[in-house]
Amino acid sequence: MPLAGIDSNFTLPPRFYTSTEIFNDELERIFYSRWIYVACDADVPKPGDYVTLKIGTRSFFLQRSQSGEVRGFYNVCRHRGHELLQGERGNRKGLSCPYHNWTYDLDGKLLRARGMAPDFPTEDFGLNPIEVAVIGGLIYVCLTTPAPNDIEAVRTSLTPYLAPYELRKTKIAYQKDIIEACNWKLVIENNRECLHCDSNHPELLVPLYSSGFGKGLDKEHLQPSEQRFQETLQEKETEWESLGLPYELLEFPEGLWFRTVRLPLANQCISHTLKPEHACKKLLGNFKQPEGSGLSLWTHPNSWNHFLSDHIVTFAVFPLSVDRTLVRTKWLVAADAVEGVDYDLVNLTKVWTETNAQDQSLAEGTYRGICSGGYIPGPLADEEYLVKQFLSWYKDQLTETPLH
Amino acid sequence: MPLAGIDSNFTLPPRFYTSTEIFNDELERIFYSRWIYVACDADVPKPGDYVTLKIGTRSFFLQRSQSGEVRGFYNVCRHRGHELLQGERGNRKGLSCPYHNWTYDLDGKLLRARGMAPDFPTEDFGLNPIEVAVIGGLIYVCLTTPAPNDIEAVRTSLTPYLAPYELRKTKIAYQKDIIEACNWKLVIENNRECLHCDSNHPELLVPLYSSGFGKGLDKEHLQPSEQRFQETLQEKETEWESLGLPYELLEFPEGLWFRTVRLPLANQCISHTLKPEHACKKLLGNFKQPEGSGLSLWTHPNSWNHFLSDHIVTFAVFPLSVDRTLVRTKWLVAADAVEGVDYDLVNLTKVWTETNAQDQSLAEGTYRGICSGGYIPGPLADEEYLVKQFLSWYKDQLTETPLH
Amino acid sequence: MPLAGIDSNFTLPPRFYTSTEIFNDELERIFYSRWIYVACDADVPKPGDYVTLKIGTRSFFLQRSQSGEVRGFYNVCRHRGHELLQGERGNRKGLSCPYHNWTYDLDGKLLRARGMAPDFPTEDFGLNPIEVAVIGGLIYVCLTTPAPNDIEAVRTSLTPYLAPYELRKTKIAYQKDIIEACNWKLVIENNRECLHCDSNHPELLVPLYSSGFGKGLDKEHLQPSEQRFQETLQEKETEWESLGLPYELLEFPEGLWFRTVRLPLANQCISHTLKPEHACKKLLGNFKQPEGSGLSLWTHPNSWNHFLSDHIVTFAVFPLSVDRTLVRTKWLVAADAVEGVDYDLVNLTKVWTETNAQDQSLAEGTYRGICSGGYIPGPLADEEYLVKQFLSWYKDQLTETPLH
Repeated sequence: MPLAGIDSNFTLPPRFYTSTEIFNDELERIFYSRWIYVACDADVPKPGDYVTLKIGTRSFFLQRSQSGEVRGFYNVCRHRGHELLQGERGNRKGLSCPYHNWTYDLDGKLLRARGMAPDFPTEDFGLNPIEVAVIGGLIYVCLTTPAPNDIEAVRTSLTPYLAPYELRKTKIAYQKDIIEACNWKLVIENNRECLHCDSNHPELLVPLYSSGFGKGLDKEHLQPSEQRFQETLQEKETEWESLGLPYELLEFPEGLWFRTVRLPLANQCISHTLKPEHACKKLLGNFKQPEGSGLSLWTHPNSWNHFLSDHIVTFAVFPLSVDRTLVRTKWLVAADAVEGVDYDLVNLTKVWTETNAQDQSLAEGTYRGICSGGYIPGPLADEEYLVKQFLSWYKDQLTETPLH
Repeated sequence: MPLAGIDSNFTLPPRFYTSTEIFNDELERIFYSRWIYVACDADVPKPGDYVTLKIGTRSFFLQRSQSGEVRGFYNVCRHRGHELLQGERGNRKGLSCPYHNWTYDLDGKLLRARGMAPDFPTEDFGLNPIEVAVIGGLIYVCLTTPAPNDIEAVRTSLTPYLAPYELRKTKIAYQKDIIEACNWKLVIENNRECLHCDSNHPELLVPLYSSGFGKGLDKEHLQPSEQRFQETLQEKETEWESLGLPYELLEFPEGLWFRTVRLPLANQCISHTLKPEHACKKLLGNFKQPEGSGLSLWTHPNSWNHFLSDHIVTFAVFPLSVDRTLVRTKWLVAADAVEGVDYDLVNLTKVWTETNAQDQSLAEGTYRGICSGGYIPGPLADEEYLVKQFLSWYKDQLTETPLH
Repeated sequence: MPLAGIDSNFTLPPRFYTSTEIFNDELERIFYSRWIYVACDADVPKPGDYVTLKIGTRSFFLQRSQSGEVRGFYNVCRHRGHELLQGERGNRKGLSCPYHNWTYDLDGKLLRARGMAPDFPTEDFGLNPIEVAVIGGLIYVCLTTPAPNDIEAVRTSLTPYLAPYELRKTKIAYQKDIIEACNWKLVIENNRECLHCDSNHPELLVPLYSSGFGKGLDKEHLQPSEQRFQETLQEKETEWESLGLPYELLEFPEGLWFRTVRLPLANQCISHTLKPEHACKKLLGNFKQPEGSGLSLWTHPNSWNHFLSDHIVTFAVFPLSVDRTLVRTKWLVAADAVEGVDYDLVNLTKVWTETNAQDQSLAEGTYRGICSGGYIPGPLADEEYLVKQFLSWYKDQLTETPLH
């Protein structure tokens, strides 16, 4: 991987966005080797619930076992290789292959190998497992064993931030998959700065200060335009203290792969909506009354999430090929909230549906420009420092991860 | 081709189903070098009738000459390379290229080379021929010259079995092409065992005993469930003797590439239908009355066929790419049978249309499983011994066939 | 590039039409290194008018500057690589990137780099330019700097031929893009002979003598069928002399990459129409009255053009992949002509719309034949000498052009 001499203050050379060879290397070194955000507790609320997933070309499923844990297995029978579960989601009390009826329990143990001799060693033919970690209701998987052990440090840091929202007691109100015609890194780079927000995201800037998304956190050197944001922030910090809500910025602490911070909402908003009203009447977790802040969490390589007192929006990015990327957005509300009574689906999803579409247009336009033949790596502004941080992390993965 | 160390009692390692390099090698070593089943006499009943075909990336046509023989040529003019015949089938008394009107006779001889000087050596520019063999009305081609000479041994063995059905006097009542999203070998592996029939093929198991399709032929060691099949078989053998119908199992004799056997039908059926009635009132060949057996023929690498006394179903498999496979099914009836009078098309095609769709789902589900990243070659049961036999033959082709 | 031993009197070996590796080499050595016809003055009549274009994988735009010159730049911002202009055409007084609003003037100079420090060297981040040459209103670009300097010799030779038509004062009455399922060279080979016209182009042969399109120009050795053409030609030459219209054949003079000739029209036609009437009442340039000739211009590697006294038809060929080719046809009329009054669009476009469709069928049929596996390079007739000339030029480019 020819990374030497690449300036971290510039975007990457074109081949990093267009080469299938580098893309395959990224799958191996990042998406198959690191902890990847893929789903959440609300995808598999009850024992037997499963969701089928794909990272790169690898297909697996997550299923809640009888004992309530989330298990992960490659979606393939040990006999002739037929996939075990079809469709996106469902519930199964046991796992029986539709081809020749080999049967497994929810822990992956082979119970019955039809057609085989009585002395067949079923114990050697259990399902092929993958590693799973659930943190604050967010499900991360790793397709390499042993998985990186930094997951426990991430769990320790993040749990206090996520706990108040009790994701385990939510349901998926809506899920939307978008396939963007661009390299996955452009989706992430776009997500890691808000310098583009002013001229592109009118809806998002109703509830959001662009400050805090890559700028405005340096309280020593305020620009005048950030004054109002900072004043609001100081008021809110007092309130968060009294409510016991963690709010301090954790920015890739000790080399870990996440950034989280609590930020006040703008324009008197109390949720990610276009009016200063809740999107869902049923509040989450411990929240007793409107609380006008959002907890944001970004993880490398593939997610961002916003936790509000009445709903959660969570985004997972899945590279499909060097030039196609799946962005999956889920809107979560309290498990007992009723559509049409407690929340209106259009109102709940409006801000991020519009923002996603705008970002898709920007990422795809950037991809076309990068593929133009005339693209030259460009300089990154100070306000784009989180893009630099992502690119720096990315380069480390490509050079430092040993392959198996 | 790294085949060393592959255990023949297990399915193949994943790369054999997913590598384009291996796929191209299979085209060269198998589909372009072996005898391939592609069509039948009923495709080209009259002189001038032609059918255009494709194996891998190679395009050719078969045409019945004035003298009644089936000829094969690559579908390309010797001048500028335009294809000679367009569309799937038709009738032409001569062959004239639409581009600049070079003209050939049905034996491929260049008659007129428009634009060339009078002394142009037309004899050097005849059509590019391919080898053709017709056995019992089934047409096999070989795209390499000289073709393997085992074809005469196959002809000698098979002719007595196929002769009673007089395929030459049939017509195509219906043809159905399916494109399956899987590697071609999964279609064949699926076809070479009936262990999956019980739980997947309710329609097929009306006329068919799963015994005989890879199990139940070992009369020495009968399982209780096969008792009824064996009893029927013994009764039928006496009947077949008296009718002069060959019935004995020929299973890849002397290393040849076919298996054939006559088997009784189940549930008083006399054809491959859901009721114990003929699918077509006009019987084939010498048959004077209902005869409740089916002659089955499987050939490596790409066909299976069932001959009933009232119709024939024939299947040809064409690999399109490493992950897409064309399965072409033809239903043949007596040439003078009249649709709506002698046969009903839905009734005639029902059993295999349903079975094909079920097998497509199984082969595609297996392909997805094999591509999951978690697939491990799996053990084959005794009842899957014809899968082992196919895989063993396959490995021989990849290692032993010299390339040109 | 294994070109040794290829006989120039035969079509090319199959790999030259099917290999992606050779296709990529053609892009580098021909389409990115030679002067390529891409558009015309009528595409960008006014300052600020732009048209976006693509050659191979490279995307750029042409725009008329405030001073009236046509400028070309890669369509990509120097900041994050977003494309600057979207859609096929439009008008912009300035160039502002939609992503983060970096702003350029029409000469490509960076005016404002939003987000960057005050000392940012904007002079180092102007748009990435490409070379542009306008000859008689036809726009050629070269994606390599420095471009081949033969462009000035081409300009000197061609200008007198093209000047009478004053393309700068025309407008695009209609543009039609066709994507042909074939290698680009088959489109050009087809265009370089009219031996196929008799049996394929009934509409085209109303206004056109096939003589002159690769045959019939050898006045010493006339075939009887060419007699009438030659008689007409002699009459017309006298007329052209008196009108001051250049007419002599220039056939790739001094190794240049064009062929031009003036030819009389057939069947009393005065335009490329099915009846002996003008297609547009408003005549072009200096033309005062119907003049029954056409000036034809062919350029390597990718264009042909016909100039009539009332309209111009211009064709540009763009390779999309080894097996897909874009053919873009434009019909130009006087800028002040009014559709429905001065010209009828169906009548104007009929001959070439039909001819294009017929040629598409021939080129695609040839591509299928060449891909058949049985294709053998075929002999070219004397009347196909311009095909030989193209293939000879093509081989020179592949062997002689040094790559950067």
